[in-house]
Amino acid sequence: MRFAVAPSGFKESLDAPAVAAAIAAGIRRVEPGAVIDEIPLVDGGEGSAKALAVARGGRIIPVTVTGPVGRPVTSHFAMLDEHTAALDMAAAAGLRLVPRAHRDPGLTTTYGVGELIRHALDQGARRILVGCGDSGTCDGGAGALEALGARILDVDAQPVGQGGYALGQAAKLDVSSLDSRLTDTEIIAAVNPYNLLTSVAQVFGPQKGASAEQVRILAGAMDRWAGVLAGHCGLDLRPLPGSGASGGLGAGLAGALNAKLIPRFDVLLDHTDLDNRLAKADLVITAEGAIDYQTPRGKIPAEVATRAKRHGKPVIALAGTIGDGAHHAYATGIDAYAGILSAPVRLAEAIDHAAELLRDATERTLRLVLVGAAMK
Amino acid sequence: MRFAVAPSGFKESLDAPAVAAAIAAGIRRVEPGAVIDEIPLVDGGEGSAKALAVARGGRIIPVTVTGPVGRPVTSHFAMLDEHTAALDMAAAAGLRLVPRAHRDPGLTTTYGVGELIRHALDQGARRILVGCGDSGTCDGGAGALEALGARILDVDAQPVGQGGYALGQAAKLDVSSLDSRLTDTEIIAAVNPYNLLTSVAQVFGPQKGASAEQVRILAGAMDRWAGVLAGHCGLDLRPLPGSGASGGLGAGLAGALNAKLIPRFDVLLDHTDLDNRLAKADLVITAEGAIDYQTPRGKIPAEVATRAKRHGKPVIALAGTIGDGAHHAYATGIDAYAGILSAPVRLAEAIDHAAELLRDATERTLRLVLVGAAMK
Repeated sequence: MRFAVAPSGFKESLDAPAVAAAIAAGIRRVEPGAVIDEIPLVDGGEGSAKALAVARGGRIIPVTVTGPVGRPVTSHFAMLDEHTAALDMAAAAGLRLVPRAHRDPGLTTTYGVGELIRHALDQGARRILVGCGDSGTCDGGAGALEALGARILDVDAQPVGQGGYALGQAAKLDVSSLDSRLTDTEIIAAVNPYNLLTSVAQVFGPQKGASAEQVRILAGAMDRWAGVLAGHCGLDLRPLPGSGASGGLGAGLAGALNAKLIPRFDVLLDHTDLDNRLAKADLVITAEGAIDYQTPRGKIPAEVATRAKRHGKPVIALAGTIGDGAHHAYATGIDAYAGILSAPVRLAEAIDHAAELLRDATERTLRLVLVGAAMK
Repeated sequence: MRFAVAPSGFKESLDAPAVAAAIAAGIRRVEPGAVIDEIPLVDGGEGSAKALAVARGGRIIPVTVTGPVGRPVTSHFAMLDEHTAALDMAAAAGLRLVPRAHRDPGLTTTYGVGELIRHALDQGARRILVGCGDSGTCDGGAGALEALGARILDVDAQPVGQGGYALGQAAKLDVSSLDSRLTDTEIIAAVNPYNLLTSVAQVFGPQKGASAEQVRILAGAMDRWAGVLAGHCGLDLRPLPGSGASGGLGAGLAGALNAKLIPRFDVLLDHTDLDNRLAKADLVITAEGAIDYQTPRGKIPAEVATRAKRHGKPVIALAGTIGDGAHHAYATGIDAYAGILSAPVRLAEAIDHAAELLRDATERTLRLVLVGAAMK
């Protein structure tokens, strides 16, 4: 039997290669001779630039940039070839870089993302891939633009200051001092197209630490920022697919730098030759930290299932947690899914033992499939 | 597709009919037209007499007896026909009847079990089925014998007193005042044959609340009691299959009342016509609160799997918890098993939502089987 094992990483627990390895170990317990193609996948969030560098033979360049709360953070980006860079916005402004006491997405900044872009320009990059995902910000990309020389001004032509709340005062975008190298540079943002600027504060604000009142203020600020960007570029970006990516970074890059917002998997998965590898499998196994109502909204298992179904392949998804609305995953082409937990346990304990739980759950799951295969 | 759903109850959570109903509900979500034969099974513990009364058209007789810590408890037994009674020892001396503060199996008594037998004799029973399981005692059945008129004496011919520890002083069993109706009464104890008097204190003492030191003392007492019983009936009962059932109740009934110790499922499952019903199924689903190293040692899923395998049927087991050594279950004929948990959770919460968790897990499990069934 031939398996394609194409999982996401489990956030705060196992990266995608480790998830794939644990699943493969579970398969081998049942079918020691199985042919297993491990295809760990990234989604534009943490680890994406490194994964691309591995897949494309690029090099990682470490740099220090301004973190989301203004303190310096150790970061990096990848040069995939002489003129192409890839960076994770999360490596400069990720939620993981925001200390719990500072979890207010109205105050955090993407300034470091702009610095990463500047470092990439310094290395000669004229095509820059910005992976969006796992952000700890909601500043509409304003910080990133400022790091590149743009100025966001209020009605008195004064800078509005850092963070999403400040955009409630924004009246004008001044790009006269923007880094001139950007004019002949292609910026591609790899985004979840389901994320729109219209709703980004409401959907993601709470998980970044915003209260209901803070969400309301942020939503107003995003609306005002959309107006300023529209005044600059002539387009209402709010309904643009991916404009809400990484707390509105998508909108900022598109509106001020003419960046292309491309569905993340169209950018990220092609280098894996995913479709051809899925086509060769008898059974496709994908996985994610949680299967829930968000799974069909541009998550890796949904993308894998959609592609596998084009070749008529059966797809199973494994998940650390099965959450509300998980059954919507069936509509994406996932035929069946299973959780990895075996006994009542705290989340922290499950995270500590994720590899072992995943391996054991894979074994159980495969045995259930084989019961079916043996019938009739 | 035709299903036989033959589960045990989930202790402290769902009785066997409720488990069967939840599994059937999960199956119907995937295959609304499935033919589902629900066969809830009992193991001699709590609920067994009631289940037998339902299956055989018997009647339940409520009585008050002496509980395991000496206080009166509301109990019951079943008259299955004019001369046949069935009782759960747990209904008079179950662990559930021992308040947590009194959890010392060296002090609790099966006295109420003897009273239940006496009540059954009063009703005309001359064949009495004693279901063993879920006990909170380890008195070798001494209490039950005393309630029926026997006396257990020390070297000074004085009664040793109540509970397992007291048997450490036992020197003689005096049956001269035993209820005379017992001479023409058949007592059948439905036991787990893996439970031996040799090891009952060590294996079950801790889960009944005994410390390591208490287990040591109890083990010595059980050994002395075996000697006294051997002096009476001429047989060393310690290695007899089922002699350790319900804290040695098996040994006491066998040694003093010539009770037959019969593997519990040979007694309890025949009334269900289990084998014929399994033979008609395409897929057998069983379930238990926990699948672990004890499953092969006479638990319901193992018995169901063994019987189903005689007809070549595939068997799946669902479990509230998958514990240590669960993989030993495969040797019994269980082809695959699955846990019911979907997210990190406390045990109490899982127990509260067991029916819903079980239904959802059945759906997921069946979908995995169908993935296999659709392959080639």
